Amino acid sequence: MKAKIIVTPKKAVLDPQGKTVQNTLEHMGHSGIQAVHVGKYLEIELADGDKEAARKQLDEACHRFLSNPVIEDYYLEIE
Amino acid sequence: MKAKIIVTPKKAVLDPQGKTVQNTLEHMGHSGIQAVHVGKYLEIELADGDKEAARKQLDEACHRFLSNPVIEDYYLEIE
Repeated sequence: MKAKIIVTPKKAVLDPQGKTVQNTLEHMGHSGIQAVHVGKYLEIELADGDKEAARKQLDEACHRFLSNPVIEDYYLEIE
Repeated sequence: MKAKIIVTPKKAVLDPQGKTVQNTLEHMGHSGIQAVHVGKYLEIELADGDKEAARKQLDEACHRFLSNPVIEDYYLEIE
């Protein structure tokens, strides 16, 4: 099994890294860029087993220390 | 239009951040974790327009400065 986790700053939170990427893309001649958000991506390879139990475990891990729920959102997918 | 870019270290490249997350998860009592890879996630909001042209532009940007093609792979999706 493989779990994919995406952690992004909440929309209301300042994202200086995203702003920098946006400015750079514009300077490099890319037009039509309205916003850039930069986040983290985690890919976790899991031993095969109960998918729902794994989701529950990882959901807790995401909430407790893989993301900061005050300023970040996360999206968890298990496949 | 929205572009999603995932940049991950190549499998052959040492991923100390991933290793640290793996160790931490194990210490926190999560079992069955075989590997963790940590990468970057970028979400780019684009003005509506030619999807293929946008893909080509962003593909070049990914290759030139959003990733380091020597040690990183990237995956680009436009929706």
